[in-house]
Amino acid sequence: MSPKITTELLRQLRQVMKSPKYVQEPVQAYIVPSGDAHQSEYIAPCDCRRAFISGFDGSAGTAIVTEQHAAMWTDGRYFLQAAQQMDNNWTLMKMGLKDTPTQEDWLVSVLPEGSKVGVDPFIIPADQWKRMSKALRIAGHDLVPVKENLIDTIWTDCPQRPCKPLITLDLSYTGVSWREKITILRSKMAERKVLWFVVTALDEVAWLFNLRGSDVEYNPVFFAYAVIGMNTIRLFIDGDRMMDPDVREHLQLDSTLEPEFKIQVMPYGSILSELQAVGASLSPKEKVWLSDKASYALTEAIPKAYRYLTPYTPICIAKAVKNASETEGMRRAHIKDAVALCELFNWLEKEVPKGTVTEIIAADKAEQFRSQQKDFVELSFATISSTGPNGAIIHYKPVPETNRTLSVSEIYLLDSGAQYKDGTTDVTRTMHFGTPSAYEKECFTYVLKGHIAVSAAIFPNGTKGHLLDSFARSALWDSGLDYLHGTGHGVGSFLNVHEGPCGISYKTFADEPLEAGMIVSDEPGYYEDGSFGIRIENVVLVIPAETKYNFKNRGSLTFEPLTLVPIQTKMIDVNLLTQKECNWVNDYHQTCREVIGAELERQGRHEALQWLIRETEPLIRVQ
Amino acid sequence: MSPKITTELLRQLRQVMKSPKYVQEPVQAYIVPSGDAHQSEYIAPCDCRRAFISGFDGSAGTAIVTEQHAAMWTDGRYFLQAAQQMDNNWTLMKMGLKDTPTQEDWLVSVLPEGSKVGVDPFIIPADQWKRMSKALRIAGHDLVPVKENLIDTIWTDCPQRPCKPLITLDLSYTGVSWREKITILRSKMAERKVLWFVVTALDEVAWLFNLRGSDVEYNPVFFAYAVIGMNTIRLFIDGDRMMDPDVREHLQLDSTLEPEFKIQVMPYGSILSELQAVGASLSPKEKVWLSDKASYALTEAIPKAYRYLTPYTPICIAKAVKNASETEGMRRAHIKDAVALCELFNWLEKEVPKGTVTEIIAADKAEQFRSQQKDFVELSFATISSTGPNGAIIHYKPVPETNRTLSVSEIYLLDSGAQYKDGTTDVTRTMHFGTPSAYEKECFTYVLKGHIAVSAAIFPNGTKGHLLDSFARSALWDSGLDYLHGTGHGVGSFLNVHEGPCGISYKTFADEPLEAGMIVSDEPGYYEDGSFGIRIENVVLVIPAETKYNFKNRGSLTFEPLTLVPIQTKMIDVNLLTQKECNWVNDYHQTCREVIGAELERQGRHEALQWLIRETEPLIRVQ
Repeated sequence: MSPKITTELLRQLRQVMKSPKYVQEPVQAYIVPSGDAHQSEYIAPCDCRRAFISGFDGSAGTAIVTEQHAAMWTDGRYFLQAAQQMDNNWTLMKMGLKDTPTQEDWLVSVLPEGSKVGVDPFIIPADQWKRMSKALRIAGHDLVPVKENLIDTIWTDCPQRPCKPLITLDLSYTGVSWREKITILRSKMAERKVLWFVVTALDEVAWLFNLRGSDVEYNPVFFAYAVIGMNTIRLFIDGDRMMDPDVREHLQLDSTLEPEFKIQVMPYGSILSELQAVGASLSPKEKVWLSDKASYALTEAIPKAYRYLTPYTPICIAKAVKNASETEGMRRAHIKDAVALCELFNWLEKEVPKGTVTEIIAADKAEQFRSQQKDFVELSFATISSTGPNGAIIHYKPVPETNRTLSVSEIYLLDSGAQYKDGTTDVTRTMHFGTPSAYEKECFTYVLKGHIAVSAAIFPNGTKGHLLDSFARSALWDSGLDYLHGTGHGVGSFLNVHEGPCGISYKTFADEPLEAGMIVSDEPGYYEDGSFGIRIENVVLVIPAETKYNFKNRGSLTFEPLTLVPIQTKMIDVNLLTQKECNWVNDYHQTCREVIGAELERQGRHEALQWLIRETEPLIRVQ
Repeated sequence: MSPKITTELLRQLRQVMKSPKYVQEPVQAYIVPSGDAHQSEYIAPCDCRRAFISGFDGSAGTAIVTEQHAAMWTDGRYFLQAAQQMDNNWTLMKMGLKDTPTQEDWLVSVLPEGSKVGVDPFIIPADQWKRMSKALRIAGHDLVPVKENLIDTIWTDCPQRPCKPLITLDLSYTGVSWREKITILRSKMAERKVLWFVVTALDEVAWLFNLRGSDVEYNPVFFAYAVIGMNTIRLFIDGDRMMDPDVREHLQLDSTLEPEFKIQVMPYGSILSELQAVGASLSPKEKVWLSDKASYALTEAIPKAYRYLTPYTPICIAKAVKNASETEGMRRAHIKDAVALCELFNWLEKEVPKGTVTEIIAADKAEQFRSQQKDFVELSFATISSTGPNGAIIHYKPVPETNRTLSVSEIYLLDSGAQYKDGTTDVTRTMHFGTPSAYEKECFTYVLKGHIAVSAAIFPNGTKGHLLDSFARSALWDSGLDYLHGTGHGVGSFLNVHEGPCGISYKTFADEPLEAGMIVSDEPGYYEDGSFGIRIENVVLVIPAETKYNFKNRGSLTFEPLTLVPIQTKMIDVNLLTQKECNWVNDYHQTCREVIGAELERQGRHEALQWLIRETEPLIRVQ
């Protein structure tokens, strides 16, 4: 992977930063966050402004360009990738390390007195604006909104904003109709005494209306906003998508409905002016509910006294707790996904020794097997297919320049998943097709112990996920090993593979208490730069647990793995496992054999079934 | 314990809340925080305003009185105690439970439109003022500073502010002279480009000048502020304490010193006007450093543009990392403390069966044995001596009304500690003088497993304490048990028994990364309301650990117990321990036997030595 040469682009950007055509006064720094106007994690090509200006295309990162400097903040998953993709114009700021300055502190340290720092007000979330604006103001600088996005002004071949057809989801998938969801939302609004709710996150719009799209790769969402009043519903969406008869019927656009369920369809671009009109119409004590992560532009449309901002919207919280239809859908999706992976691993075992399988071929083959499954829609993220040293790049994606051939002498890590109409999957398995070294087995076994410690953890109802994070690290820590990423993220139901508000991380944000029905990943890892990467990931469902004393009736929770793919026993040093851990692996493999075995049988995939049976042989611990 | 009758007091308070003599405009609510003007946790009798108005005298709690209501917020340690001490005028707000409103939310829900909420600006920390003021403003109310403390106006027999003699500590105790400490502080000030540093916390003043006092029971501190400039030192302190020749020499008040080490002594009460003068003298870019927990009154004395506020002061952080002299002092203190407890437990074993030992007698006896030790100063907190159901009151203190007699049929919990001139101790042991039930042993063993899990934990340098908290709970959680308090707090070196900025808690505030030399407590517990309480507490020192791979040279840490008092093996269900846990107990007891045994021998305490030897017999695990 060679870095993107950005000298000329930076020159152009620095020019427009001073150009009266775009800025009222010159800005001495310009911030390029990685999000879009909906603060999405995964974004459409037209929104990849940070990747365009820097070359670094990981899912998280913020670029700041000043007259003299260009700096990129990103987290541990991306240190290696960012270093490889960016040229020498850029300084990498490794977030999470002790000595890395915050963006604010860095700006204060490099800017001349009384500087202006520009940012696109549609891209920066209101909470970030507030924090940064305050820090800059204290130091004598100013954060200023720059209406026209300065990257767009120099991005001559910027792609168009996508506007693809919609998918409607019926009750068998969603469990709850969009009308019921609106009714529940309005009751939450009434509880908080707010008159309007603004839906800005793309997955929240999709969830609320039981619609899906494909405007953003991997995330089945579509560009839209919604503004819900106590008696009105406004949906801001472009294109002829609302002409589709299916969609019209699903949304009952042509029926004579109670007026409070009548959806007014409006142009996507009119959200700001409509919201400003709402803002201007309010009487004292009337409030508008927004996420505090909504864009600064939309937040400012509502006068401060009328805003009701919360870190998590009621939709975000409702969406996280899956109902029975969604849970059953997720189970079905994970069974199909496991079938595809059994096929893949069986195929890899035969093909890898021939020396003809590259990371890209393996990733394509995984997609091919998945696409054979019912209701397959697309992948849920770019497949991480990495062998040997590439495995240590935590969010690696194979490209021709880096594409390595799988071999019997290197560890292979596959982190992949798919969108099915009934659910979203995300699974990582780490395998060796030859004979792993004792050290590789040792590291793998510590990671497995961490995976089991979380998966089998029992905890009181309402525990926050961050309290479980160190369970995943304890076995690694005992030997002086660790990994620089969180242990788990929320997973959507045929929606974004990363979703809030819960997770399992040493970071304590995005951390609403866990409750039964929530779905998260459990994915500890270990990475040895230049050598290998190990990660073991299941998607797990929060379920009630049986405990002897049940926390004085507060209720007990634990996890149930939805992912049912064998964990390679060849990589396990059985003597490092306790009997309890050994039993966990055997029980897990027994379930894989029964549930996935039955489906392989049903699909007539006999060779993969034989592979599954072989890979789920019980471990025996000699002591 | 019968509750304090507060009807008349609340009537008087509600009267002064409307009296033009004290308030410019009537206040509809008055907040009574538990702290003093230094935001101390432990306070002098003259500052116990919240206890005076409500009857609840636990160490943490905030009272709010409105025209109609009186409500008390406190945490899990004090739910039972507060319920017992307050009459029906008061509503208990159980912090940490899901449905408990915050003070702000509650105020908004009960106050009439456009209310004024009063508070003493010297008592409320600036960060709390800010949060509360904002929440109230959004809801249309106002937080207003009430200059005269309204509780003081109705507290006719309020005691005088204490002003006791000072103790000077020489280098053998402190390791670093006050002049060196000032020099280091000034270098931190220069780094942050601040001109002035205001020392507001009492333990920070004491630590900085290597002085101790006894103005507050259990905490060897004295009422004072300090303002450190780059060339000046101002100490605000009352009384004739500065006439003591020892103190004069220690502070070199009469020597011809370099001017930057010359201490100007000023009256305690002049801090506000002096700080206002400093504030008025500043030029642009000149900053004054304060803790963001300093009082609103002092913070407001510095114009906003000149303030540099941080959650932890450089003194707080430096104080937390003990140097070699302090660590050695802490070790000596803990050895003496263990000698006293061996004597006590030996005595209790003989006396309890006679039925003549009450909780108060046991607590007094513990103090008596401690006071026989060299350099004993006072207790470090009110001894928690509790048997049977009293043990479930987490911060119980025996008083004649509640005083129970120890017996061979109830669990006894003793949480106690002392101030020695060389260090501060804090230890909890839970014992049974008869035959514990299987359930009591089961709970005790889970708590012990949690204690060991923290004490033996290995973790990377710079880990925050909250990441270790669930290690202490895991064994309890597996059986559906938990405890409603954090697992550990920082411990001062002949200073406050609770100190920041590190700790081990599911709460994530007060949580600077752990580093070698920090000292915290490790004290999981389990409490069964109405039956018993169990807690096992050691004070532990953060030390470097040996690990196989050492976190890529980031460094490994673990804990070393400073407390060396046997853990009652009679209470342990050995079969619930792993072999590793069993070894930990045996190794710990071996160290107790060697170190404390030698000291008992030296002090000629032969009977206690026999007791120690008996109590440190190795556990044998049969499997």
